[in-house]
Amino acid sequence: MAGETVRCTLDDIRRLSVEALTASGADRPNADAVAEVIHNADRDGCQSHGIFRLPGYCSSLKAGDANGKAAPRAINQAPGVVRVEADRGLAPLAVKVGRPPLIEKAHAQGIAALAIGDSAHFAALWPDTEPLAEAGLVAMSFVNSRAFVAPAGGKRRLFGTNPMSFAVPRPGRAPMVWDQASSAAARGEIMIAARDGHSVPEGWGLGPEGEATTDPATILKGVQLPFGGYKGGAIAMMVEILAAGLTGGDTSLEAETGYAGHGGPSPAGHLIIAMDPKRFGQDRFLERIEGLFQEMLADEGVRLPGDRRLANRARTPKDGVAVPKPLYDQVRAIIDGA
Amino acid sequence: MAGETVRCTLDDIRRLSVEALTASGADRPNADAVAEVIHNADRDGCQSHGIFRLPGYCSSLKAGDANGKAAPRAINQAPGVVRVEADRGLAPLAVKVGRPPLIEKAHAQGIAALAIGDSAHFAALWPDTEPLAEAGLVAMSFVNSRAFVAPAGGKRRLFGTNPMSFAVPRPGRAPMVWDQASSAAARGEIMIAARDGHSVPEGWGLGPEGEATTDPATILKGVQLPFGGYKGGAIAMMVEILAAGLTGGDTSLEAETGYAGHGGPSPAGHLIIAMDPKRFGQDRFLERIEGLFQEMLADEGVRLPGDRRLANRARTPKDGVAVPKPLYDQVRAIIDGA
Repeated sequence: MAGETVRCTLDDIRRLSVEALTASGADRPNADAVAEVIHNADRDGCQSHGIFRLPGYCSSLKAGDANGKAAPRAINQAPGVVRVEADRGLAPLAVKVGRPPLIEKAHAQGIAALAIGDSAHFAALWPDTEPLAEAGLVAMSFVNSRAFVAPAGGKRRLFGTNPMSFAVPRPGRAPMVWDQASSAAARGEIMIAARDGHSVPEGWGLGPEGEATTDPATILKGVQLPFGGYKGGAIAMMVEILAAGLTGGDTSLEAETGYAGHGGPSPAGHLIIAMDPKRFGQDRFLERIEGLFQEMLADEGVRLPGDRRLANRARTPKDGVAVPKPLYDQVRAIIDGA
Repeated sequence: MAGETVRCTLDDIRRLSVEALTASGADRPNADAVAEVIHNADRDGCQSHGIFRLPGYCSSLKAGDANGKAAPRAINQAPGVVRVEADRGLAPLAVKVGRPPLIEKAHAQGIAALAIGDSAHFAALWPDTEPLAEAGLVAMSFVNSRAFVAPAGGKRRLFGTNPMSFAVPRPGRAPMVWDQASSAAARGEIMIAARDGHSVPEGWGLGPEGEATTDPATILKGVQLPFGGYKGGAIAMMVEILAAGLTGGDTSLEAETGYAGHGGPSPAGHLIIAMDPKRFGQDRFLERIEGLFQEMLADEGVRLPGDRRLANRARTPKDGVAVPKPLYDQVRAIIDGA
């Protein structure tokens, strides 16, 4: 992110996003939903999912890979299951449509799931789980994506970077939320290392012949590896099965094969599970888990996942966001229809 | 496991277990349920959870740490939630009592949970999830235990080895099941290395002052570490929150503080989630996931989790199990009331 930047307020980020998305063929509900997750990502200093992703969303809409006028419908699939027919749209509106019935079902049933099989996911997962924790629920989210990652022991692309998120309410504070890929590294990190000519740690990936390497360009041509050896590989496989299997969404391999290659999001399955501690009979849940968090923080060196995001969230409404000039110009050109 | 052994059939393992448990104060339903998980562990070559654990169960019963005459009751806590009041018994009977209503709820609701807060868990987790997959369900299980593991970045004991299991049905075959600790290593592996005077890999644990070490005896006095760095640490924390928080069970720190130290199981929270792919509208789930497994297996070097267990399962009914003579004698002595 070296070089000239343009200082934008969070309102600018949202407005630029809406304008670029609508200029690319999105209707207002879809544009607003995507702009919201872009705004929230930049607000929280999560730049890799902020306005940085906007051109990819727009090219995907222009190419017709994603339906910018998608009208997602929430289906009451079972007493504990909401399914959203996402109409091949971008995930944010599908999640937004599925969230109220998911929350209602979780409060009523104790546990409920939201399954989305036909949307294109490109965002961080914490914006999907955090609102559930704000509604008092414990939430888990699983998304697969295009195949870039080998199973443990393997050397062929089979799984996506398959992120997972977990969110827990905290009394009087923003929820604790984590969101992590099941690959050793994010693909973007490897791309940046390749661009900058740096090597990457062992274990991030293999070359095209399955050879161990620390050269990021070789890994990009080859395959990424799961985090944490075979245990992380088991997590990657679980995310794949939950996200693609229970939603009817493409497997990562199907998503990769069918990918049109316009730099935008790929089709992905998306499963969210929400649980209401009160319906488990746990009225002291918040207080007990807060005690656990305080025990964690009493150990010097431990920080809670997401605390950097929350620090940024306190800062960016005043400070705004530094958008690289070339990216800013690209967004302006999309808006101007250039 | 060097030295003299006694060849036992699987029936012997079950019978010896029932006799030793009843001699230690268990009633028949509790003894049968524990003997079943011990039998299944030895049948699958999972020796660390087989008859090897029997003396610990027995001493825990004799000392009154666990209630050998526990009468667990399944409570219809919410439409999607079964809670079992385990009456301070050993986990196997509590799980057995909770399983039928969990299966029924998962089929009816699409997703359901079983929460057990007051049992003592000492077994592998795959015997808890595999029967759910045999009933056509996708299952996840989370258990916490006594505190041995530091959060990522920390050096104090706060989490248990906090295992997690995931099970998926397969058409015409035993389910795919994995079961893994969220610590880098099982505590038993470190104990065996200490006994045998071997060093262990970096990253398994820290010494009492938080110092990095490869000496197993120092780690046993210090703290174990999560697998896979901060990502594995996030999994460990999630297991803790799900297992203790949603069940009302002891946190790992509470379990450690209250542990009476008779070598038996500790109190633990236990959460199982079960989902019915058919109620998600996914009638092709089995076939699609089997396709994924076959893609995995087409990659030389990849094996499915649990395949070694299944190979043992085919072998041990004929071959039996080699029980170390000192352990066999110890079990006989328990039975004889010595």
